[in-house]
Amino acid sequence: MKLTRRVKEILSWYESDNPGTKANLARILMEGKLGGTGRMVILPVDQGFEHGPARSFAPNPAAYDPHYHFELAIEAGLNAYAAPLGMIEAGAATFAGSIPTILKVNSSNSLSTTKDQAVTATVSDALRLGCSAIGFTIYPSSEYQFEMMEELRELAEEAKAAGLAVVVWSYPRGPMLDKTGETAYDICAYAAHMAALLGAHIIKVKPPTDALSLDAAKKVYIDRKIDGSDLATRIKHIVQSCFNGRRLVVFSGGEAKGTDALLAEVKAIHAGGGNGSIVGRNAFQRPKDEALKLLAAMIEVYKSKP
Amino acid sequence: MKLTRRVKEILSWYESDNPGTKANLARILMEGKLGGTGRMVILPVDQGFEHGPARSFAPNPAAYDPHYHFELAIEAGLNAYAAPLGMIEAGAATFAGSIPTILKVNSSNSLSTTKDQAVTATVSDALRLGCSAIGFTIYPSSEYQFEMMEELRELAEEAKAAGLAVVVWSYPRGPMLDKTGETAYDICAYAAHMAALLGAHIIKVKPPTDALSLDAAKKVYIDRKIDGSDLATRIKHIVQSCFNGRRLVVFSGGEAKGTDALLAEVKAIHAGGGNGSIVGRNAFQRPKDEALKLLAAMIEVYKSKP
Amino acid sequence: MKLTRRVKEILSWYESDNPGTKANLARILMEGKLGGTGRMVILPVDQGFEHGPARSFAPNPAAYDPHYHFELAIEAGLNAYAAPLGMIEAGAATFAGSIPTILKVNSSNSLSTTKDQAVTATVSDALRLGCSAIGFTIYPSSEYQFEMMEELRELAEEAKAAGLAVVVWSYPRGPMLDKTGETAYDICAYAAHMAALLGAHIIKVKPPTDALSLDAAKKVYIDRKIDGSDLATRIKHIVQSCFNGRRLVVFSGGEAKGTDALLAEVKAIHAGGGNGSIVGRNAFQRPKDEALKLLAAMIEVYKSKP
Amino acid sequence: MKLTRRVKEILSWYESDNPGTKANLARILMEGKLGGTGRMVILPVDQGFEHGPARSFAPNPAAYDPHYHFELAIEAGLNAYAAPLGMIEAGAATFAGSIPTILKVNSSNSLSTTKDQAVTATVSDALRLGCSAIGFTIYPSSEYQFEMMEELRELAEEAKAAGLAVVVWSYPRGPMLDKTGETAYDICAYAAHMAALLGAHIIKVKPPTDALSLDAAKKVYIDRKIDGSDLATRIKHIVQSCFNGRRLVVFSGGEAKGTDALLAEVKAIHAGGGNGSIVGRNAFQRPKDEALKLLAAMIEVYKSKP
Amino acid sequence: MKLTRRVKEILSWYESDNPGTKANLARILMEGKLGGTGRMVILPVDQGFEHGPARSFAPNPAAYDPHYHFELAIEAGLNAYAAPLGMIEAGAATFAGSIPTILKVNSSNSLSTTKDQAVTATVSDALRLGCSAIGFTIYPSSEYQFEMMEELRELAEEAKAAGLAVVVWSYPRGPMLDKTGETAYDICAYAAHMAALLGAHIIKVKPPTDALSLDAAKKVYIDRKIDGSDLATRIKHIVQSCFNGRRLVVFSGGEAKGTDALLAEVKAIHAGGGNGSIVGRNAFQRPKDEALKLLAAMIEVYKSKP
Repeated sequence: MKLTRRVKEILSWYESDNPGTKANLARILMEGKLGGTGRMVILPVDQGFEHGPARSFAPNPAAYDPHYHFELAIEAGLNAYAAPLGMIEAGAATFAGSIPTILKVNSSNSLSTTKDQAVTATVSDALRLGCSAIGFTIYPSSEYQFEMMEELRELAEEAKAAGLAVVVWSYPRGPMLDKTGETAYDICAYAAHMAALLGAHIIKVKPPTDALSLDAAKKVYIDRKIDGSDLATRIKHIVQSCFNGRRLVVFSGGEAKGTDALLAEVKAIHAGGGNGSIVGRNAFQRPKDEALKLLAAMIEVYKSKP
Repeated sequence: MKLTRRVKEILSWYESDNPGTKANLARILMEGKLGGTGRMVILPVDQGFEHGPARSFAPNPAAYDPHYHFELAIEAGLNAYAAPLGMIEAGAATFAGSIPTILKVNSSNSLSTTKDQAVTATVSDALRLGCSAIGFTIYPSSEYQFEMMEELRELAEEAKAAGLAVVVWSYPRGPMLDKTGETAYDICAYAAHMAALLGAHIIKVKPPTDALSLDAAKKVYIDRKIDGSDLATRIKHIVQSCFNGRRLVVFSGGEAKGTDALLAEVKAIHAGGGNGSIVGRNAFQRPKDEALKLLAAMIEVYKSKP
Repeated sequence: MKLTRRVKEILSWYESDNPGTKANLARILMEGKLGGTGRMVILPVDQGFEHGPARSFAPNPAAYDPHYHFELAIEAGLNAYAAPLGMIEAGAATFAGSIPTILKVNSSNSLSTTKDQAVTATVSDALRLGCSAIGFTIYPSSEYQFEMMEELRELAEEAKAAGLAVVVWSYPRGPMLDKTGETAYDICAYAAHMAALLGAHIIKVKPPTDALSLDAAKKVYIDRKIDGSDLATRIKHIVQSCFNGRRLVVFSGGEAKGTDALLAEVKAIHAGGGNGSIVGRNAFQRPKDEALKLLAAMIEVYKSKP
Repeated sequence: MKLTRRVKEILSWYESDNPGTKANLARILMEGKLGGTGRMVILPVDQGFEHGPARSFAPNPAAYDPHYHFELAIEAGLNAYAAPLGMIEAGAATFAGSIPTILKVNSSNSLSTTKDQAVTATVSDALRLGCSAIGFTIYPSSEYQFEMMEELRELAEEAKAAGLAVVVWSYPRGPMLDKTGETAYDICAYAAHMAALLGAHIIKVKPPTDALSLDAAKKVYIDRKIDGSDLATRIKHIVQSCFNGRRLVVFSGGEAKGTDALLAEVKAIHAGGGNGSIVGRNAFQRPKDEALKLLAAMIEVYKSKP
Repeated sequence: MKLTRRVKEILSWYESDNPGTKANLARILMEGKLGGTGRMVILPVDQGFEHGPARSFAPNPAAYDPHYHFELAIEAGLNAYAAPLGMIEAGAATFAGSIPTILKVNSSNSLSTTKDQAVTATVSDALRLGCSAIGFTIYPSSEYQFEMMEELRELAEEAKAAGLAVVVWSYPRGPMLDKTGETAYDICAYAAHMAALLGAHIIKVKPPTDALSLDAAKKVYIDRKIDGSDLATRIKHIVQSCFNGRRLVVFSGGEAKGTDALLAEVKAIHAGGGNGSIVGRNAFQRPKDEALKLLAAMIEVYKSKP
């Protein structure tokens, strides 16, 4: 596989990583319809853990079958498929080599009252299942944030030594943040920056709103006139907060929403220089043909000239 | 031993497991009167731990002797016998090779006030005792659920590497659930799904009632018209929640009850596509001849055409 | 050393243990005046830890010297001597080979307000000191019970792999039990059963009173007419709860008491089929000649036909 | 590289360290414009973690790029550059061999409500990234102080065995200290001394104020007439508290402030015998040319005869 | 070095220890002016950690320099010098072979509000620094006592395997003890006994007062007429509580006090059969010549016939 100049450039940012990790990053970046562009669309399916099976899959019962998601990601020409242990185990052999997989190694659920996750898989699991990366969620601001970061450190160190890439879901929540604060402009930037500092190769955050949350930060955003008036500008600030663009950052799709709303978001991500989207419910809760149509439309946006 | 087509099909679902684990799953699936059918009846005897010796064995004092349970399971032609460390140690040599055993590696007791269990045996124990699988209980929703899941992850990874199968008892309980909630339809499905996501080969849950518990789930069950009017339909939903049937799921018998009630339940499990029953008190608290008769009747149900 | 038929029979119950552990059980069972009978009298000296030196040894100041206890156990012809690390270290070389020793590997003290113990020695210590077994206390019902059981699991697994025997002191205490409950009939049986389930080779409990404690158990004891009217009958129930007699169970002597009271207790243990006594304060707080007389009398009881 | 007499003298104080660690201390001490003088100016950039990206880098947006800081430290002729994992990873290859790096292995953030830090990198990370030292923060007086000290012990032991140096940020905070107490004269001396006792090679504290905090200490400072009237004298006391000068101690610059205020502080550090400055925000929040000018002025002070 | 009969006798009490540990005990017992007598004076300098540098060293500023303490101990002809990691590291090479050192491996400080200590050094540190022993503090009765005992177990096991001796500071404090209770006669004896049970080679306690603290113990002390009227008699009881004298026990000097008071205490320790003194502040807070004079006087007492 001949890498594009853009992918080579991106790999050059990961200057401290070993060839194994660079190869796995390249596999993800070169896969699918966006292969070689430096943009990505990734399918994550950990909603069964987070919300339960019926809330996740009843809208499109074909999605109860783990093979469905592999097939959807492959048919849509996505860059990677991310899921917890059982979901990957149930299809890893059938689809071996067909699409890069990201093993989500920690998970929470709707029956929990704490802002923490259980570590539910290991780097050894990722290796035996042929995954290209591990995925890990941190909740900056949670009373468990330091433990989560330390779990990430341990898993990330092991993953990097084994030539895997590390994808970090950075979702702020905790006693200092209300619902608005969790997706506030300053908080998203902070969350993305911490993921970068923790050594993430690919960072996943939610699209930021125009709210500001931390008092100490507000002052700076106003004094320094950091523009947050439209999503594209805010995305640009998130990219800047990811080592001035030296780290890949993708944005989640959030709750299922209309096609137009989603595509508008994708256009802003694209315009702001974000590296792509990671969309679950918006993809697998639609009937497959609709999902393929939507994903194709998203890919079209990312393929267009910014 | 020549595997049946059905067992080969089931093994094919466990596509990421090594031959050792597949062989142990095959041992369980090919054993006894249901051998080869893809259905199972398993005898679990951890009630001495959970409720104490007299509450468990006084109704049938022969059951104080660990050898009794091996003999009962063998004579009844069951698929496997599951018990904690001491119970297995006390008979493993005498009955070596006579029936697949499942080492229950964590246990709670009636003198505890916390919704947690102690890890009381290891994968090394399972190996030296010739077991085919380890058994582990999680309490989704408990304030200890993440620790339990992490213990399971560690033990399951080690078990799989050693060619053992992993059986998960998934029993929701905790601050978000009242007594009704623990066996509610949506909660049982969620519990079974999480066990599957955690990498269980065989999942054990309680038969679901027609209650719904989580508000966010209720809406979906109603909107999507997920039928829960009879047990067989609910079982079908549980099976669906186990990766659309790609993971074996068996149902506990619960408290000792009348033969008719139990058989009715078994018929519903059968009709709904469940993979079998795991019955303790209903088996060993009866005199042996009655227990054999009951188990034979259950096996008949599972052997019949669904 | 030619084992008696009785000892061979007892060893046959430990069918999953390696020859090393069987040999150490045999050493204990073949030692002293009761050697070969299947009955035991063991001297435990951990009271210095539990109650302090003066409360333990001032009544008989010779007992301040660790050598005293080795000598007492040897002269009395006992089966084994059990003590914490320092006590064993201080005599292990002088008395090497003279009497089987049990290294007590956890200990509490009277300055603690929690129902827990510190793990104060290891299996390596037991091996370098030539011990035949480790001794470990669990407090079923304590808020630390699961941690204690997990510590036991770890130490017991290591001990068994190294060919040592495992003696478990099972002393219920905790928020669900008042003082009466701690020695209630049902609770002692439960405690003994859990020790057996945890893989103990020899179980130590207190002699049960005729009280019943757990409501759920009471009902069964009454319904099933489990007789608890005299100590011998209760001992029999404890023996039954130890895998129907497949595990050795010995009874502690408790606080220092009169010779007659103690011997009456021993007779009941004997009559009920208990495997012996483990008496500390009643032995070493008397002047040596009196202690030897008492221990000889106890041994006589255990040597008599039941 | 021929070491100066001064650097040789300093290395002689680290008499228990292996040649690897001495070589790394020498690398830091011989680097840049102050190379060989025994004085140091170090650039630390962990403010992105501590305060977030915008509060740290918006005043000088070039600083969003990790390469900027390497370049600034090199161009300014500093002794070392210290930063968390991600920042070092993003430039370690490009600037390999160009300046000694200190991997900051623990970090806190403004979204935390506890006085603790997460361990976010390891000694292995430091080695693979070619760092000369690890940096670790302790919060003496915090309710987490013992855990932090134990983490430091573990990391420092590993670092020393691997030939790395250990830099300790000793920042008192906790229930016994109000804001004034955190930088009080006695507390800074105590914090520096504890870092030395914990085995630090280089100690970083804040410049002490003339306040005294602990009652028991106040008495001694007054009785023994320990002068605290001007900063230089206080610095001298801190140096004395670092094993009478046998350990290198550097002082942080704190919040961004005016050039004059900063240089006045530096002169006092110099006069008091402190080993240098470690300045972050005061360096990278200025435009690069201004920062270079300021750092040059600081270096001039440290090069002057005290 | 030819051992004296007395030292050989003492070594014989440590019958379970390997030759390496015996050699290190011999090194301590044969060192200095008391070499060969079975008595010891040890210099401990952990007050910088416990109370801070100024409270410890301002009375005699030469003591800020770690080399000072090595020199003081050597010139005074003491048996050993004990200190935390940094203090030993700063002089271990210069004074290698000049005096046995004891590495204090845990430490507390005056900024802590919990009755615990941080483990701040390891057995590996002790070995690389050429120490003869590790020193460890336990706080019997503290809510952290079991954790501390478990840390001690781990470190002591490792130390013994590596041929080091183990010195235990046993300082009772916690919710059950008021200030008087911490040094009460019964409590000191209990604390010393527990250190012996935990496997200490040398035990350090405070000189006991004539108070009694535990109700259950009081009764025994009165009933058994355990004399506590003068310090020498109380020391004798402590010695008895240390395995009837089979374990070495030394007594701390406590706060700086007058020469006469200190020597009176030493005489009582001597008369009661205690094995010596471990004096810090009383030694290093005096000018060196006064300290040497005092230490010489103490040594004279210990050299006299009891």
